[in-house]
Amino acid sequence: MPELRASRRGLLALGGAAVAGAAASGALAGCDGDGNGSKAATPVDAKVPFYGAHQAGIATAAPARLAFATYDLTVSGSPEENRAALRELLQTWTAAAAAMTEGKQVPGDSTTLVAPPADTGEAYGASPANLTITFGVGPSLFDDRFGLAAKRPAALADLPKLPPENLDPSRSGGDLAIQACSDDPVVAFHAIRNLARLGRGTVVMRWSQLGFGKATSNGSAQETPRNLMGFKDGTRNIDGTDAQRMDQYVWVGNETDQAWMRGGSYLVARRIAMRIEAWDRDFLADQQHVFGRYKYSGAPLTGSKEFDTPDFGAKDSSGQPVIPVGAHIRLAAHENNGGIRILRRGYSYTDGIVSASGELDAGLFFIAFQKDPRKQFVPLQRSLGAHDALNEYIQHVGSGLFACPPAVSGPDRYWAQELLG
Amino acid sequence: MPELRASRRGLLALGGAAVAGAAASGALAGCDGDGNGSKAATPVDAKVPFYGAHQAGIATAAPARLAFATYDLTVSGSPEENRAALRELLQTWTAAAAAMTEGKQVPGDSTTLVAPPADTGEAYGASPANLTITFGVGPSLFDDRFGLAAKRPAALADLPKLPPENLDPSRSGGDLAIQACSDDPVVAFHAIRNLARLGRGTVVMRWSQLGFGKATSNGSAQETPRNLMGFKDGTRNIDGTDAQRMDQYVWVGNETDQAWMRGGSYLVARRIAMRIEAWDRDFLADQQHVFGRYKYSGAPLTGSKEFDTPDFGAKDSSGQPVIPVGAHIRLAAHENNGGIRILRRGYSYTDGIVSASGELDAGLFFIAFQKDPRKQFVPLQRSLGAHDALNEYIQHVGSGLFACPPAVSGPDRYWAQELLG
Repeated sequence: MPELRASRRGLLALGGAAVAGAAASGALAGCDGDGNGSKAATPVDAKVPFYGAHQAGIATAAPARLAFATYDLTVSGSPEENRAALRELLQTWTAAAAAMTEGKQVPGDSTTLVAPPADTGEAYGASPANLTITFGVGPSLFDDRFGLAAKRPAALADLPKLPPENLDPSRSGGDLAIQACSDDPVVAFHAIRNLARLGRGTVVMRWSQLGFGKATSNGSAQETPRNLMGFKDGTRNIDGTDAQRMDQYVWVGNETDQAWMRGGSYLVARRIAMRIEAWDRDFLADQQHVFGRYKYSGAPLTGSKEFDTPDFGAKDSSGQPVIPVGAHIRLAAHENNGGIRILRRGYSYTDGIVSASGELDAGLFFIAFQKDPRKQFVPLQRSLGAHDALNEYIQHVGSGLFACPPAVSGPDRYWAQELLG
Repeated sequence: MPELRASRRGLLALGGAAVAGAAASGALAGCDGDGNGSKAATPVDAKVPFYGAHQAGIATAAPARLAFATYDLTVSGSPEENRAALRELLQTWTAAAAAMTEGKQVPGDSTTLVAPPADTGEAYGASPANLTITFGVGPSLFDDRFGLAAKRPAALADLPKLPPENLDPSRSGGDLAIQACSDDPVVAFHAIRNLARLGRGTVVMRWSQLGFGKATSNGSAQETPRNLMGFKDGTRNIDGTDAQRMDQYVWVGNETDQAWMRGGSYLVARRIAMRIEAWDRDFLADQQHVFGRYKYSGAPLTGSKEFDTPDFGAKDSSGQPVIPVGAHIRLAAHENNGGIRILRRGYSYTDGIVSASGELDAGLFFIAFQKDPRKQFVPLQRSLGAHDALNEYIQHVGSGLFACPPAVSGPDRYWAQELLG
């Protein structure tokens, strides 16, 4: 599974363009240590391959920072003209994404003095820090603008209403989506910003979300991160290196009605606001009952270690289930959902203060990858929405659904080429 | 200057509290590597001493992430009662800050099942990752609520209007301020959140700002970070390890009219929005003229290496100054401002999209420390505001001014004790 691991071979690749004006100088090279002789904060050569079978950023262990954005196309021509504009955009975007994941500037001229640089420059000289750029298309792309309705996968059905949700249209939807993950937030932001810039005239950014905190797709190899409720989040997630489970639950296979999606995956994004102040006033015992886990160790209430398998049948001395009937881990468990699993990639977010309440605007930006949202996210969220004890403290306020095609196999290809070709 | 350097001695200190319910287990210990055998993302024992002469987070090299918040007191008693409430708050806050910078939970009971945990828990088991928590008081603290008017330092004069600014009151001011810096954004956010929680009933958070990107107070020892305009930012900053300059420009000395501020410093915060899309359309030559530096190397236009001293007298073959008269480095230079210097700590921010324009809401959260804002930030910003070529692309939209007292010398002391004592 070489595409699942960051390459350690390459040295830091600089912008690739000659340096204008002044000499390049030693100041451009290398990544800073902390000046105290300790380990560097980020390995300078941390790259994740862009080309391959599946897009990076799905099975890949999640770097510490997320910049997510959706974009709307602004085309107004005939379906043929609009498809041509979209094709050109995706050719440009794919080349730029490939370059950025290599730590290079976006292709084009960034050194001519009498022109705007092709790259905005804030990540110049920085390590890509495990940058992955993952691309998807939303249901709205299959309306009448592009003549692509016949190529819409059945699995890309609009998400039904999933109470209790209170979605903000300005934080939901989008024709296209980009998930940029990196250990360096500047590098992640640089990616969504430069794609917006390269698409000017064809797309506008619809919404964006920054996230932080080390999510992990491999609980057994990394310490599981904590969400803003203070609980470990992702203990029972699918391990991205488990090829059999990835094929079973995440990668689109021969079952698809649309060949262009084979090897791809469906991304569901949910902005989940937490009622942090109310949560913080809750008793420790109640918090642990809500999740069904111990707060500090992360162990299920029926176990003593984080990765112990929960015993959903266990009863206490009074005959009550040790893991309550409304506990989040019970309702989310594959054992209690006909075997359903999804691959989660969660990032905490905070966007300041809600002016109406004075409370923190913070929560979880939840991303899930799966073979078919109709059979995975939707029924799972229906079950959680109806019974989850956590609902007292959370609300889904933004949403997105995107079909992520397979990766491009090489520099002569572009994203979703089989959809548009 | 031992207080300027992070201690490498300690091992990761866990929460300090016994673990409730389940066994602690191995999952609680240690910091994750990246699973590929490379260097860990963050040194697990990275701590900056909390006690000392000067508060940490000023001379300290800036960690990669910022969480800044201001708080308003909600007291409504007599000045004596209000002072007592403030004193109690600051005792609680100081103890909590000392614990958090050690990687411990905030003091109090986090393990009793039938009570809310004292600590919110999201940073439990994490390295403090060079966490510093810096405290300041705003001009509004010296109104009639606390009877402290006679203790207001003259240097804490309200900032005058500094055009071109367009300040949002909901992102400006505050009775108290906390600057939390860490290489781990969860740890930084945890600090401002838990102080808000501990102060419930006495303070409410007024505004907050997250920032990212490795600012540096020591250009010679670390690579200078780039701002979102793609230019190196901070090349000529004061070196925090230069004790003579720190005494000359940053630390309040015997000149103060208020003994409680001796050894402290004044913090000016400005949220500086960038017109990123307009900037990105500007020619490389124009961008370089605006800053007076080459974009990629960071060298002044009269030099070839980043740290070359700018030659403000140099003329080109047509007799024009090589560094234009409105160039940012010319106007900000101590050589052209009667020797004025400030200590800067800049963090990039982005808060999504401005809904009115569809443009990115992004820029620089600028923090400056100095001996006397009336003689440093204010005249410097007046000069920049009047002539800086950068003004076409930026606008100051938030502002704060805070007097940061000296550090507490030990666990029996609290922040600003000499002000309240």
